[in-house]
Amino acid sequence: LSLSEFELIQKYFTDITTSRTDVVLGIGDDCSLLKVPENHQLAVSIDTLVSGRHFYPDVNPYSLGHKALAVNLSDLAAMGATPAWVTLAITLPAVDEQWLADFSSGFSDLAKQFNVQLIGGDTTKGPLSMSIQVHGFIPNGQALCRSGATEGDLIYVSGTLGDAAFALASKQSSVKLDKPIPRIELGLALRNLATSTIDISDGLLGDLGHICKASQLSALVELNKIPLSSELESEIAKNANWDYCLSGGDDYELCFTISSADKEKLEKLSQKLDLRLTCIGSMLSGSGIQIKNNKGEIKLAQGNSFDHFK
Amino acid sequence: LSLSEFELIQKYFTDITTSRTDVVLGIGDDCSLLKVPENHQLAVSIDTLVSGRHFYPDVNPYSLGHKALAVNLSDLAAMGATPAWVTLAITLPAVDEQWLADFSSGFSDLAKQFNVQLIGGDTTKGPLSMSIQVHGFIPNGQALCRSGATEGDLIYVSGTLGDAAFALASKQSSVKLDKPIPRIELGLALRNLATSTIDISDGLLGDLGHICKASQLSALVELNKIPLSSELESEIAKNANWDYCLSGGDDYELCFTISSADKEKLEKLSQKLDLRLTCIGSMLSGSGIQIKNNKGEIKLAQGNSFDHFK
Repeated sequence: LSLSEFELIQKYFTDITTSRTDVVLGIGDDCSLLKVPENHQLAVSIDTLVSGRHFYPDVNPYSLGHKALAVNLSDLAAMGATPAWVTLAITLPAVDEQWLADFSSGFSDLAKQFNVQLIGGDTTKGPLSMSIQVHGFIPNGQALCRSGATEGDLIYVSGTLGDAAFALASKQSSVKLDKPIPRIELGLALRNLATSTIDISDGLLGDLGHICKASQLSALVELNKIPLSSELESEIAKNANWDYCLSGGDDYELCFTISSADKEKLEKLSQKLDLRLTCIGSMLSGSGIQIKNNKGEIKLAQGNSFDHFK
Repeated sequence: LSLSEFELIQKYFTDITTSRTDVVLGIGDDCSLLKVPENHQLAVSIDTLVSGRHFYPDVNPYSLGHKALAVNLSDLAAMGATPAWVTLAITLPAVDEQWLADFSSGFSDLAKQFNVQLIGGDTTKGPLSMSIQVHGFIPNGQALCRSGATEGDLIYVSGTLGDAAFALASKQSSVKLDKPIPRIELGLALRNLATSTIDISDGLLGDLGHICKASQLSALVELNKIPLSSELESEIAKNANWDYCLSGGDDYELCFTISSADKEKLEKLSQKLDLRLTCIGSMLSGSGIQIKNNKGEIKLAQGNSFDHFK
């Protein structure tokens, strides 16, 4: 194959996504040119996925294209941002057109679903990896930060936890592991409602720990309130292994806090979005995370976030 | 060494750059939050540098930190943008604190020089590479695109060409190869003056070719007008090898076109910026690039841009 870099980019990474009116100039010049709507802030996040670390080299490229974008959109969801644009810097060991076509489709299908336009990128040769930066908008002052929780706030999570980690460990395929759907709608609905929000990419304890630290509070989590899929419920009944739902990464659900006065609003929102939203505990003074088991015993959680250098 | 990812990022990649008032929220949440000034467009560009391809694995990390940012800022310069923010996604094979400290210094020193704030990033383990996205501002409608050249426009380049490629080939150290200074000031001065602009990252012919294609014109370049350093002049006198200045990458000078009526303005600008700005030819109808040698012979240039997949 002798496609040039430019032709490659053009073929698989141009016009694969939505065309937005706020993109003055897209791919093809030294920079893309963009318009941020008035009275809005720009939210940006960049993440890298490396072959052999974040995914298997033989992963289905369609799923990879989906997931690479999904994990980034999840950061916008956690901020309450409306997705707008994405850049993709991809490093490939060789030109495999079928692989590129499939990867591009997975990326493109999810991008279209959330009205996201690919506005730039870079294609280089080397060990397979990709860095993706997403860009979204938030009305001034309405961003969902990690730092806004106050004492007495209730802690919620969306969906069920631990499924992705359990699927990975048991080598089962799982929609949640392979094609997570970023909780964009929920993030938007939490504007002016949640006091703090984070997405669960590294595991509940690690990510809730970030909320605790940023809000200078502690959290009390009740083990038997954590929402579980039937598969994980069976696993826990068998092996009493709570690691998947406490420390398992890759769930991309949102963890957030609300004032206890807003409990009913949350119930209505859950119905409206047809999405499980479960209160798993509350924010207290102090620091760290305490876990209450079904016997009422309380233990302090130890460090547990997935950490690339440990 | 057992520094965690988060501690690593905090230690070497936080507070190393300028603190800007348009950064509402910097590193440390799911996204950073940013304000684009009114009546301005956002210009963004992302580039990846891979070890063994774009730099030697044993490269001086200070120079690498400088250059990784410089090549990206050069894209902003070519658009006429004022630099503002940068994100850095870096993949490292291991934690080498001295390497990180030096890389971070090189990056930071250049960022401060151009008032750029690091607003986000990702640190992962894997083969050494980095993706950097820069963000800048341009008053609405004043961006310097590749597509605006018209027939009869004069073609200019800044500085001298071919030095980086010659230094690389002759294994000499060279400020231009190791620590290029992006032509930001020139880019800003070319607003409302240049009809098209590009930065010379892949070689004069390749990059001028992009202007030709985007502007649907051809270019006539006069070989003996190309500005050369004394080193390259000697090399060419000896070996008649024009490849360095025609096809050598990594120069990061600007190539731009102006209306012939603006020739005097350019001469004044050159004096004001204390920067060599040389007319090397003109834009004509047709397509492709013709090269005129010192005997007056004209030849059509063949494809020549540095291309990763060829």
